[in-house]
Amino acid sequence: MNKDHYYMKMALDLAASAKGRTNPNPVVGAILVKDGVIVGSGLHRKAGEPHAEVHAFRMAGEHAEGATLYVTLEPCSHFGKTPPCANLVKESKVARVVVAVQDPNPQVAGRGIGILREAGIEVEVGVLEKEARLLNERFVHNMVNRTPFVISKVAMTLDGKIAAYNGHSKWITGEESRHNVHLLRNEVDAILVGIGTVKADDPMLTTRLETGGKNPIRIVLDTTLRMPMEAKITDCSEAKTWIVTAEENDVAEKIKALEEKGVEFIYVPVTDSGLDLSVLMNKLYEKGVTDLLVEGGSEINGSFLRAGLINKFSIYVAPKILGGRDSLTPFTGDNVESMDEALDVTIHSVENFGEDLLITAYPKYKDN
Amino acid sequence: MNKDHYYMKMALDLAASAKGRTNPNPVVGAILVKDGVIVGSGLHRKAGEPHAEVHAFRMAGEHAEGATLYVTLEPCSHFGKTPPCANLVKESKVARVVVAVQDPNPQVAGRGIGILREAGIEVEVGVLEKEARLLNERFVHNMVNRTPFVISKVAMTLDGKIAAYNGHSKWITGEESRHNVHLLRNEVDAILVGIGTVKADDPMLTTRLETGGKNPIRIVLDTTLRMPMEAKITDCSEAKTWIVTAEENDVAEKIKALEEKGVEFIYVPVTDSGLDLSVLMNKLYEKGVTDLLVEGGSEINGSFLRAGLINKFSIYVAPKILGGRDSLTPFTGDNVESMDEALDVTIHSVENFGEDLLITAYPKYKDN
Repeated sequence: MNKDHYYMKMALDLAASAKGRTNPNPVVGAILVKDGVIVGSGLHRKAGEPHAEVHAFRMAGEHAEGATLYVTLEPCSHFGKTPPCANLVKESKVARVVVAVQDPNPQVAGRGIGILREAGIEVEVGVLEKEARLLNERFVHNMVNRTPFVISKVAMTLDGKIAAYNGHSKWITGEESRHNVHLLRNEVDAILVGIGTVKADDPMLTTRLETGGKNPIRIVLDTTLRMPMEAKITDCSEAKTWIVTAEENDVAEKIKALEEKGVEFIYVPVTDSGLDLSVLMNKLYEKGVTDLLVEGGSEINGSFLRAGLINKFSIYVAPKILGGRDSLTPFTGDNVESMDEALDVTIHSVENFGEDLLITAYPKYKDN
Repeated sequence: MNKDHYYMKMALDLAASAKGRTNPNPVVGAILVKDGVIVGSGLHRKAGEPHAEVHAFRMAGEHAEGATLYVTLEPCSHFGKTPPCANLVKESKVARVVVAVQDPNPQVAGRGIGILREAGIEVEVGVLEKEARLLNERFVHNMVNRTPFVISKVAMTLDGKIAAYNGHSKWITGEESRHNVHLLRNEVDAILVGIGTVKADDPMLTTRLETGGKNPIRIVLDTTLRMPMEAKITDCSEAKTWIVTAEENDVAEKIKALEEKGVEFIYVPVTDSGLDLSVLMNKLYEKGVTDLLVEGGSEINGSFLRAGLINKFSIYVAPKILGGRDSLTPFTGDNVESMDEALDVTIHSVENFGEDLLITAYPKYKDN
């Protein structure tokens, strides 16, 4: 591994440690190296707190002069909650800046780098770019699309079943997988299920980790407001609950009763295939949801699939073969006529969790 | 790797090269080592031809004296088409014999080793035993159960679909996977499908490899003899076709017409869940079928699953998400009431074939 890769990897590892804590900001890590010694290091820990570069320069002090800065994302060029980092870098008298990836926001990409180059600093861009983009896949998607990054999570048997015909599904995957799902919940802004899942399983959808953890907003798709008043998810004392329902619903009293329990409502139009998910995605992003974990069931998953809204698949596969003519499968929705209608994906990784597999895949959308 | 492992691995690799060519016999490899030099090597190439040890001793000649013999399976102790190898080893004056695994036939296990030990030869058993049993999994199963070793092969999308609701399935997997299926066909004695698959796809079920290859016997489950007279599979010029049908069928004329085309018939009783597959397994083994590749469809796979007859799962997973409410899934059969009815399996390996995955799994039967 060459020196640049070595230090950039270290900066990426620093950045990764804050994953899920910086939303809506990206995760960023920075390393300052002078004469083969790390003189400064930092990461962006939380929105509103200093950027990674600020921490690194504070640590380095006068040692920054003549050093090389490794930073996982192009230094910002705008005044936000903090002043632009590009100016700070410029004033620091570093000799060289290595950047993993340009700012993905098409409106500002390259500006920070431009400021540095104009100041006569040598800038190299693209070291471990792929890894850096993957680490900030949520932020990259947000900047380009202005919608939440949607992760579809499925737990299925090796023969692609998520439950018996009667809905029985406890437990498909093992403890390690279920623990990992809680780690995932801990990283996202919101989690989404259909009202069918609420009625069948009455889930809490909170993050259960020994170390505590953050509860995502719980979003329920419920076109005709079938939500039982006593559903656990209507208890908003630990986590927020948002119900997405049809604009034209005439159930004002029930809405009022649920609002009194702390539930918020989002109204979207209904199309031939149910609630308009594209409108919903825009509304959620406006309300600050940068990533969304869709946990099904089959029909909700199928709707997101057909709408082309899924950005990542996290498929837990349990070492079981279930069979059964009417057993439930992870993605249904409207029938398809031919294999050509399948969404092509790239299998990114296959990991072991206990005896289960986690297959991570990314969609290959034709217009991408 | 220690010396014994090193030479046994070599003997296993020799053995593996004959896989699918030695049925009903096991594959066996042998290496003779003296003073750190390989003085003899051999493998069992085909039933009726010399055993691995014979080839190795022929090559070694007088150098066998005082050598160590590495052999992947206990030398045989009975007169078959060839004389017992245990006697040959005894007379060879080797100093030491290393055996990977005992003969799995419970009626003769240990006899060959006994002959050697009585002759004063040092014998070590169990070096790379797990690998050796896996390599001869078909033979081990045959010796213990006296039924064919059943491999269930499935090609599905990542969401567990094998076709659209209308049966459209071309193509799920890519070229590399399909090529690998032909390598698999090339190794087995027989391949089995349901009449539904014949009527839907009109397949040949022959082995198509550039290097030629061996055609397995094609077996069709066809309870009420719905086989179309013009189905490609009824052309027996390149490969044998056996139709399995109900004992009480009253279709003598159609049977006669198909027999004239070269098709053979196997009659089995019908139970509540269709043709009695256990009876069929016994009949197939009597007719010399030592391994059987079951290629579906869903209901046939489900029947084999429920009957507890599958010994190995080869599941090709294509990087596609299909969805669709009535899309077909790899295992159906009678409905199951709960996740507890799933067959537990051990995921043995996950391999890449082009962009597809091949997940190999073994069932954990409760009575095993």
